[in-house]
Amino acid sequence: MESLKKRILEEGRVASEEVLKVDSFLNHQLDIQLFEEIGQEFYKRFEGKRITRILTIEASGIAIASIAALYFKVPVVFAKKTESRNLDVDTYKSQVYSFTKQKTYDIQVSKRYIHEGDRVLILDDFLANGKAALALTDIVQQAGATVEGIGIVIEKGFQEGGKLLREQNVQLESLVIVDRFKNGQVTFMN
Amino acid sequence: MESLKKRILEEGRVASEEVLKVDSFLNHQLDIQLFEEIGQEFYKRFEGKRITRILTIEASGIAIASIAALYFKVPVVFAKKTESRNLDVDTYKSQVYSFTKQKTYDIQVSKRYIHEGDRVLILDDFLANGKAALALTDIVQQAGATVEGIGIVIEKGFQEGGKLLREQNVQLESLVIVDRFKNGQVTFMN
Repeated sequence: MESLKKRILEEGRVASEEVLKVDSFLNHQLDIQLFEEIGQEFYKRFEGKRITRILTIEASGIAIASIAALYFKVPVVFAKKTESRNLDVDTYKSQVYSFTKQKTYDIQVSKRYIHEGDRVLILDDFLANGKAALALTDIVQQAGATVEGIGIVIEKGFQEGGKLLREQNVQLESLVIVDRFKNGQVTFMN
Repeated sequence: MESLKKRILEEGRVASEEVLKVDSFLNHQLDIQLFEEIGQEFYKRFEGKRITRILTIEASGIAIASIAALYFKVPVVFAKKTESRNLDVDTYKSQVYSFTKQKTYDIQVSKRYIHEGDRVLILDDFLANGKAALALTDIVQQAGATVEGIGIVIEKGFQEGGKLLREQNVQLESLVIVDRFKNGQVTFMN
């Protein structure tokens, strides 16, 4: 997706060989016009899949999923990371290791909001080690639903997530795949 | 907003005298079509304010702010609740006491994404004790920007947040204001 590559080259800040900061448009400040292009692109790639529900994870996946849902015209469900007094007791749970936060945490989705037979599209902003997407996949399977696709805005091609998900025999669409950031430079693998 | 009242009456679940669960459409599963109506309604109420930026707080505010931004055509910024390796060091910070989670936490916004002179609209799903909206207001003021309005989807009229914010002399628009939930019933105050 060329407009996304352009934004990454113009505004992405390389913080280390493995960390690319895109918080000026993707995950702290949000450029909603770009999100509309992203949502349309996901719709183009998955429109044949008869998606019934979009699943993402708080927090930065929520905006991507919500704008994409305008095109798919299906509900969004976001997995919750923290214990909340207001969450149903009866949830599907899975575990995620976060490289960024260097800890393992539970994610949960109320059993009310994914059903047997649902055709689920998983969306997220980043794919690195794949742990979040695998945990979301686990939750979908616990519900007796199927993962019809996984859409990622930026895949880190030098980490193992892409390989792990492609082995699951699921349609994985990463709008851009970036290589390790050498000398502060971003290069793309797709 | 009548369509919102209707959804609350049909799907809201009263968990106690003070807790209304609306996770089937507002803050766990998200009905994006309803969010479009909500976004349009906020636009109608604040369109004269020449808003330059929408500010919200993760997680459930993000979807509301993102869909509303389609109408305002301005960037969204969401305050972060947790320490993240990827957040800039240079942030505006404030503190929030969460009644739901029964603890105090910091919220942060990078200084890159709110500027002196910005005309900010604060949006959130719930207004209860007002602590989140006041902390967001504090951050806007630290940046030398102004809060031009606060838009809330559901105000709990029996808690003090509405009163506190109205005393700040800011335009507060709550799409619905609910009264204490007696005998499992929801009644509206607007």
